Amino acid sequence: MTAAEIAALVGGDLIGDGGLELASAQALHRARPDQLAFWEPRAGQSAMPSTEAGCVIVKPGVEDPCRTLIRCQRPRQAFARALRALVPAAWPRPGIHASAVVESSAMIGEGVHIGPGAVVEANAVVGPGSSIGPNAFLGSGGVLGSSCRLYAGATVYGNARLGDRVVVHAGAVIGADGFGWAFETDRYRKFPQVGGVRISSDVEIGANACIDRGALDDTRVGSGTKLDNLVHIGHNCQIGRHVMMAAQVGLSGGVVVEDYAVLGGQAGVGDRARIRRGVQLGGQGGLLPDKSIGPAGAWWGTPARPLREVLASQALVRRLPRLIKDLASLRRRVRRLERP
Amino acid sequence: MTAAEIAALVGGDLIGDGGLELASAQALHRARPDQLAFWEPRAGQSAMPSTEAGCVIVKPGVEDPCRTLIRCQRPRQAFARALRALVPAAWPRPGIHASAVVESSAMIGEGVHIGPGAVVEANAVVGPGSSIGPNAFLGSGGVLGSSCRLYAGATVYGNARLGDRVVVHAGAVIGADGFGWAFETDRYRKFPQVGGVRISSDVEIGANACIDRGALDDTRVGSGTKLDNLVHIGHNCQIGRHVMMAAQVGLSGGVVVEDYAVLGGQAGVGDRARIRRGVQLGGQGGLLPDKSIGPAGAWWGTPARPLREVLASQALVRRLPRLIKDLASLRRRVRRLERP
Amino acid sequence: MTAAEIAALVGGDLIGDGGLELASAQALHRARPDQLAFWEPRAGQSAMPSTEAGCVIVKPGVEDPCRTLIRCQRPRQAFARALRALVPAAWPRPGIHASAVVESSAMIGEGVHIGPGAVVEANAVVGPGSSIGPNAFLGSGGVLGSSCRLYAGATVYGNARLGDRVVVHAGAVIGADGFGWAFETDRYRKFPQVGGVRISSDVEIGANACIDRGALDDTRVGSGTKLDNLVHIGHNCQIGRHVMMAAQVGLSGGVVVEDYAVLGGQAGVGDRARIRRGVQLGGQGGLLPDKSIGPAGAWWGTPARPLREVLASQALVRRLPRLIKDLASLRRRVRRLERP
Repeated sequence: MTAAEIAALVGGDLIGDGGLELASAQALHRARPDQLAFWEPRAGQSAMPSTEAGCVIVKPGVEDPCRTLIRCQRPRQAFARALRALVPAAWPRPGIHASAVVESSAMIGEGVHIGPGAVVEANAVVGPGSSIGPNAFLGSGGVLGSSCRLYAGATVYGNARLGDRVVVHAGAVIGADGFGWAFETDRYRKFPQVGGVRISSDVEIGANACIDRGALDDTRVGSGTKLDNLVHIGHNCQIGRHVMMAAQVGLSGGVVVEDYAVLGGQAGVGDRARIRRGVQLGGQGGLLPDKSIGPAGAWWGTPARPLREVLASQALVRRLPRLIKDLASLRRRVRRLERP
Repeated sequence: MTAAEIAALVGGDLIGDGGLELASAQALHRARPDQLAFWEPRAGQSAMPSTEAGCVIVKPGVEDPCRTLIRCQRPRQAFARALRALVPAAWPRPGIHASAVVESSAMIGEGVHIGPGAVVEANAVVGPGSSIGPNAFLGSGGVLGSSCRLYAGATVYGNARLGDRVVVHAGAVIGADGFGWAFETDRYRKFPQVGGVRISSDVEIGANACIDRGALDDTRVGSGTKLDNLVHIGHNCQIGRHVMMAAQVGLSGGVVVEDYAVLGGQAGVGDRARIRRGVQLGGQGGLLPDKSIGPAGAWWGTPARPLREVLASQALVRRLPRLIKDLASLRRRVRRLERP
Repeated sequence: MTAAEIAALVGGDLIGDGGLELASAQALHRARPDQLAFWEPRAGQSAMPSTEAGCVIVKPGVEDPCRTLIRCQRPRQAFARALRALVPAAWPRPGIHASAVVESSAMIGEGVHIGPGAVVEANAVVGPGSSIGPNAFLGSGGVLGSSCRLYAGATVYGNARLGDRVVVHAGAVIGADGFGWAFETDRYRKFPQVGGVRISSDVEIGANACIDRGALDDTRVGSGTKLDNLVHIGHNCQIGRHVMMAAQVGLSGGVVVEDYAVLGGQAGVGDRARIRRGVQLGGQGGLLPDKSIGPAGAWWGTPARPLREVLASQALVRRLPRLIKDLASLRRRVRRLERP
């Protein structure tokens, strides 16, 4: 693509050589003259670092006479858009590998790819244009919508129904039994896990993440939600739309996460707790069972509180040595006053 | 099953139509007239929510003229028992799939199921009635007792011996090398990991969980213990019987967990620490290396302390602003007194 | 091997029967007369526990007339060296299993082992002496150096290049998409992940661990670094040489970890943070985005501070009840003084 084509695509102002051919894209510090890069100033950065990039997407006002610039309000977002055009996502060629095991009762849509060693059980449904990677598994009765992608070794049990364009990264497990046990006399007996998993469209699930089936009802993940690697979603959780969970987040059973919430890495949420719309829970934050946090805004700590309260509390603890010294000095002064 | 049959099974009192046929079971809010449900009041709930369930298992004293009730002391437990009868666990049909790779020296018991793409190495032992799921792996010399189940893509190395009725969910790894390293001069050299894993009967291991082999001796998990998804058990841990570990718990090496302990989600335990019988460690709680907590009861925080101490400490920190104000006021009063 | 041969190998002083044949090695408390063991005194231990071991590696000065001793400065390290000689690591026999799927354009070195169900895609490179375990996956264009080992079900995408002697344990995923998203209007759009992963030589990666590919640039792991099970390394992280990360550590995107750093279990690090050379971050410790910790030494807590500060702060909080009592008593005394 030419610089002019990219400027048009992202709706930016072109400064310099619009005919410049850009073969690919790269980070600013590694980009070469035939590559596109972008720059958004970090805190404390005033000038663009030196680069060999042929063309850079920048904020309005940035100058660099040595290279072609595309100016726009949100360079990172514009760059992502350009990148999607420059480097189209690789997609496996349709076809079922000879070593895949696909039951004859499974319904396989048009243009589906099923890789070597993949297993598709009876009555499973694979929507058109979907891809099931090498050694991945789709259980009996499980449903993939259109243009879904299961990467290598992903497991989707038969109780799961996925919408369209759902991406399941390698090793993720959708629909395993929830952790439901009833203590009887001297041992735990299983509370049978017979619910399912419903994943809406445009969800992405990270590598080795786990989403358990519901106990009776279903575990649900709303459209547009993105889960990072090694996330755990317990049985009967109800995750809203456009929720983000960073790596290693863990939700116990029956947790509700409303739309547009963001959970930082390693955050943990107790049974039946609720995270309200737009809440941003910081990394390692924790929520006790049955608790609820909101409204929207930054929350942190365990138990989670509004970020400003946590910071204030930390500042107070840091003042403790001073406090103790003040108290001792005051005690001495009172003692002097008490002397006859 | 009829309502009368279920009442007899769970030892409850039947109120209403004993001949009512129940086809399956569901959560109270979703149940239909041909389904069984249960209700245990949550804090603040006084009346049973409205439901279309044909039959509900409830506590003594609950009334509902519109539907059949089964009254008993522990509705949830009784419901679980009914559910196990109503919805028998699905079990794969015996037989070895043509695409499975089973070494001829492996000993395969009666009624075993081995799914597509599964691999069973030399001298492995698969007890009667066990099931090895699609693309799962049992290494050379590894032993499964009777009626064990490895789900899709589970890995059990040859150093592992599992008892009877052990369930290993998808993607779990049993018997990988422990994390043992000796620093020499300027680099880490491996402390060879040559021990094994011994898992007793009736243990359940969650999806993508990891149990490492011992360095020299064995890592052990006692009977009836249940581990949730993404749990990590380091080398040489000694886990007792009927222990519960919620998702993402991590134990370093040589940790001892005594019988009936319960570890909340994301709890972490340092090398060689000990959790005594019946301890309940709250979510995200942490134990330093070589430390020990007990007796039985609720513990929380990092480093873990009795729950009431943690709560008291949190309350004190919340009183700090008041404390600082009090001190300032006192200082002013002393200053006034000091004036000649 | 004989006791004398082992003494020579580890450079220790032999006391007793040098001709004693040692068949294998075991922990001190389980060792039998034909086995080697070692003993390093724990805190509070003055005498060696009783043992049936035929030969024990001990520190200088230890006496035991009943068995052969090898005295040296670092018994554990010496034992590890002896163990590597006594119990050579098992390595699968070279050869490609009939059920493996290896594209013809893949370059397979001398003496390579590829297990049943493994998949090696087009243009992948497998260095001499490497082993790809059952149902493992090496993507198109991916590179393994010499003597690498992928265990069962490991996934290495085509964007990854591994050095020599890299070990990837079961279920680990190298090169999945990073978690990069740009919020547009009302939803998240993917920031395409087109970078790769570069793993240097002598790295070991634990079971079910995840290392994401870079967004544009590469994610890098330096030589000699060891990652335990379930570790998460986000996109564009730059991990130095001889770094240790215990189980369930999580690094967000663009984190820098310098050489010889050690991260305790479940530690978490925010985007673009930096851990300086030789820092030891305690278990569950946390680092906020863009922060940096150093110099070398022990750090702990969230946000991470020098260990001694954290301990001092914890001690102060424990003094709070006393402080509150002191303040109340002082207030009473001031009141008395204020009385006319």
